Amino acid sequence: MPNQKRDSLKRRLYSIIFEAETPAGRAFDVVLLILIMASVVVVSLESVVSFRRSYLHVFQALEWTFTILFTIEYLLRIYSSAKPIRYIFSFFGIIDLLAIIPTYLSLFVLGSQYLLVIRVFRLLRIARVFRLTRFVNEGQVLSKALRASLTKITVFLGVVLMMVIVVGALMYVIEGRQSGYTSIPISVYWAIVTVTTVGFGDITPVTPIGQFLASCLMITGYGIIAVPTGIVSVELANAERMDTNTRVCPNCHKEGHPKSANFCDNCGYKLHSDLEPVGNSANL
Amino acid sequence: MPNQKRDSLKRRLYSIIFEAETPAGRAFDVVLLILIMASVVVVSLESVVSFRRSYLHVFQALEWTFTILFTIEYLLRIYSSAKPIRYIFSFFGIIDLLAIIPTYLSLFVLGSQYLLVIRVFRLLRIARVFRLTRFVNEGQVLSKALRASLTKITVFLGVVLMMVIVVGALMYVIEGRQSGYTSIPISVYWAIVTVTTVGFGDITPVTPIGQFLASCLMITGYGIIAVPTGIVSVELANAERMDTNTRVCPNCHKEGHPKSANFCDNCGYKLHSDLEPVGNSANL
Amino acid sequence: MPNQKRDSLKRRLYSIIFEAETPAGRAFDVVLLILIMASVVVVSLESVVSFRRSYLHVFQALEWTFTILFTIEYLLRIYSSAKPIRYIFSFFGIIDLLAIIPTYLSLFVLGSQYLLVIRVFRLLRIARVFRLTRFVNEGQVLSKALRASLTKITVFLGVVLMMVIVVGALMYVIEGRQSGYTSIPISVYWAIVTVTTVGFGDITPVTPIGQFLASCLMITGYGIIAVPTGIVSVELANAERMDTNTRVCPNCHKEGHPKSANFCDNCGYKLHSDLEPVGNSANL
Amino acid sequence: MPNQKRDSLKRRLYSIIFEAETPAGRAFDVVLLILIMASVVVVSLESVVSFRRSYLHVFQALEWTFTILFTIEYLLRIYSSAKPIRYIFSFFGIIDLLAIIPTYLSLFVLGSQYLLVIRVFRLLRIARVFRLTRFVNEGQVLSKALRASLTKITVFLGVVLMMVIVVGALMYVIEGRQSGYTSIPISVYWAIVTVTTVGFGDITPVTPIGQFLASCLMITGYGIIAVPTGIVSVELANAERMDTNTRVCPNCHKEGHPKSANFCDNCGYKLHSDLEPVGNSANL
Repeated sequence: MPNQKRDSLKRRLYSIIFEAETPAGRAFDVVLLILIMASVVVVSLESVVSFRRSYLHVFQALEWTFTILFTIEYLLRIYSSAKPIRYIFSFFGIIDLLAIIPTYLSLFVLGSQYLLVIRVFRLLRIARVFRLTRFVNEGQVLSKALRASLTKITVFLGVVLMMVIVVGALMYVIEGRQSGYTSIPISVYWAIVTVTTVGFGDITPVTPIGQFLASCLMITGYGIIAVPTGIVSVELANAERMDTNTRVCPNCHKEGHPKSANFCDNCGYKLHSDLEPVGNSANL
Repeated sequence: MPNQKRDSLKRRLYSIIFEAETPAGRAFDVVLLILIMASVVVVSLESVVSFRRSYLHVFQALEWTFTILFTIEYLLRIYSSAKPIRYIFSFFGIIDLLAIIPTYLSLFVLGSQYLLVIRVFRLLRIARVFRLTRFVNEGQVLSKALRASLTKITVFLGVVLMMVIVVGALMYVIEGRQSGYTSIPISVYWAIVTVTTVGFGDITPVTPIGQFLASCLMITGYGIIAVPTGIVSVELANAERMDTNTRVCPNCHKEGHPKSANFCDNCGYKLHSDLEPVGNSANL
Repeated sequence: MPNQKRDSLKRRLYSIIFEAETPAGRAFDVVLLILIMASVVVVSLESVVSFRRSYLHVFQALEWTFTILFTIEYLLRIYSSAKPIRYIFSFFGIIDLLAIIPTYLSLFVLGSQYLLVIRVFRLLRIARVFRLTRFVNEGQVLSKALRASLTKITVFLGVVLMMVIVVGALMYVIEGRQSGYTSIPISVYWAIVTVTTVGFGDITPVTPIGQFLASCLMITGYGIIAVPTGIVSVELANAERMDTNTRVCPNCHKEGHPKSANFCDNCGYKLHSDLEPVGNSANL
Repeated sequence: MPNQKRDSLKRRLYSIIFEAETPAGRAFDVVLLILIMASVVVVSLESVVSFRRSYLHVFQALEWTFTILFTIEYLLRIYSSAKPIRYIFSFFGIIDLLAIIPTYLSLFVLGSQYLLVIRVFRLLRIARVFRLTRFVNEGQVLSKALRASLTKITVFLGVVLMMVIVVGALMYVIEGRQSGYTSIPISVYWAIVTVTTVGFGDITPVTPIGQFLASCLMITGYGIIAVPTGIVSVELANAERMDTNTRVCPNCHKEGHPKSANFCDNCGYKLHSDLEPVGNSANL
């Protein structure tokens, strides 16, 4: 096969598999999304005892069909990619691999096929397929705000974790084995259940002093749930503001103009366009 | 009956049934609201075993009375409406129909009369009846903020849903049947109960590794509860800001200037103060 | 007794009982606060079975002592007040009365003495006694923000209540008696427990469709918990801004200057003091 | 030993133990952090029954090793410190002492060794060791916002506590012993579990009127969870705004100007831009 022909095939494959601009590429992606969802549903239903008893063979046949299809797709992605190594170690490359391994693994390790549900993460491609640019943009604002909050939330969670370990140990000493606080790790688990206001109720304090300490922990948890919320709110507001604008009035230096503004709303001076090169500082 | 007379009857019926400007229309609406609330109370009480045993016939008589009254009202609404089709497929038209169907259905399907509680949604008319314009305005600001948040919250919930499916499958593999994680769908249900910090406690992890994973899920849920809150807070603040400003640029007629703006950010023309009488367009 | 003498006694009593400016008035208030706290502790401890068995007579003696002291205080408040009727129907007047009635009532209705804990609300006077002006100010900002949020939160809670009634009825039809959903009111109670993310777990869905509906309700509750938070955040930010300032720059009309500002931070023009009468518009 | 030699030893010890600028000081801190984490893990594992049965002697040996090392370190800290008293009563001095006492105490009081987990708080030094200045800065913004929120949150929690006591007493009267509300303190504990939306479910109302009151309490708790969040959000936004500005008025040296300020709001002098080089003090 001459080099040129192979290259053209690779390029066509690439446009079908990786892109969604051509009708063929679009059809491929839509079929793929449907297959992914179907395979997650099949894995979920297989775990239900009554279904598995009746349809075990159907489920297994479907599972292997999906896996073989996804394996072919994975190999084609590597083949058609210009930089295969880069694809393999990209976020989606790793997800694509993890989405086929469990079926092969299930030949050796029983039950590992249930890990196939990791395939749901492949659905993240949905945004690209349907050109949901608005959703992608909003998602970027969100993830930007979350990244900006990361340091503060790490500090916050670090302090909460220390508190939870100390309270867990205290409850272990106060309540003891007979109330279900059978060890410090279990007590720490209880403290996390409590401070996050989940409150399963599988372990609960029964001594007055334990209930008092639990009350303090709950009120603390109730109060500090505000902290991550406050952090994210502030960062989201910042991210939104940043998103809409970075221009400064050349006359009065006011910042934070809406994207659509032509003139400074403080002094009436003409603003530079976001894209125009600076220099045409017109006056009123 | 001459056409004119019929038209006048229709118009009068319309003003009584649909409007609340005339004394008759107002009286009609007040009686209707009382009937709706009474019928919801009757349906609720009928479901209590001890009451039903003693007063079954009273309940059934009341239920049919309400239903027949509401049916007559529904038919009159269609009759008096200028565009009946438009009413039938409007939000309130559908609610009005759904509010009478269950009683007739209960002749064939046992227990369907309990769906009558959908009648509570008819109470949404209360705002119009009592001219609670302030409540309506606030409701509009709220729903505007929620609509503006919708894209971000959809992205957020989509990612949460993927996470919940994967964690559910992991817990199913880790904890297994004997802890109550009998299938992947049940485990996903547990993951939702946990990540939303509801924490029923009907299913709880018992293995150390399961408790560790549950702890991670709870802390994640605790952290990301901040995200929708932050989204809505920011949008509400935006919606409020928009809401408070009603000034229009006298030059280019642009609306929606921030309260702090002195100049139109579109054409640079000086804006009137919110409080100043129009006419003194001073210069800097 | 001559009129003048009685008036002087009344005035002195008033300054002791109602005010905290004189040493005697201050001492009176401090003693009162201690008595209130002691009486709440006594009522609480009396309810513990083991304590009541051993010390019933002590508890009863203390309770009657407190009640007689508070009754005398209440009568003196009425006597020394310039406008007794106004005191009696004031917030604190009603609380003061409610704080003594249950003991007398307990002669006729068993167990009513536990309602004495309403006395804790008398502690609200603590702010006045210790001149916690900063706390009072912050409390006013808070309650101002909450009042401003009231309309929005009422609209929000109204819609949530309708949703909860409909979901409760649906769960009653879906799950039925054997899962604990014994009547519509009980199912509505469950829906409230779920939507508020409390999640006691005394009633939990067991059918797949019930669990699916519960999941939807939980995710909704998780999403809409953001709404009141957003409302209060925005109103608090507004209340804070209002609180710190209402001055406008006479030159460039910029608002929102910090309380401590002497000059407009936008154009450098001298601001009027908050307290000074307008007129001395000095220049730079 | 001559004085000078001892002083030089003290100074060298100080730089190793208290500082992390020299290689020796850095190595010391890293080893210390590892030892602290190891000792917390050992204490936690010792509390697990199956581990303790098998490795009791190993655990005890390790525990005493850690404690003796930390005791030596504590004494060296006192010795090398220029102002030993000040170190002993500093935050870290007290933590360091509390981190060694429980082992010695365990000779007399069984189980007190589990309090050793207080050692986790020694990990707070981690920020200094790894020069995580960004984390320290963010932590300071956080704690500044929390301190600013303290008054409002205290007022808020005070009112919540009063409400919880009254609701607890009401539930005790309504539900009574047979539902698990065995005393007012227990009922108050239940009310705290409910209002914070934790909802263990160890105690739940069973009478209709109790369930109605609980529903009211839950909805209240759901509504007021917004209040601390709103408070912290606003204060965080304030703290951030303050944090970002570092400009000083060249005339009166006032600090903390808002980012948008052009003129000092204290003396009306023009401020330098954040980015401009100092020197071009332009006029209006």
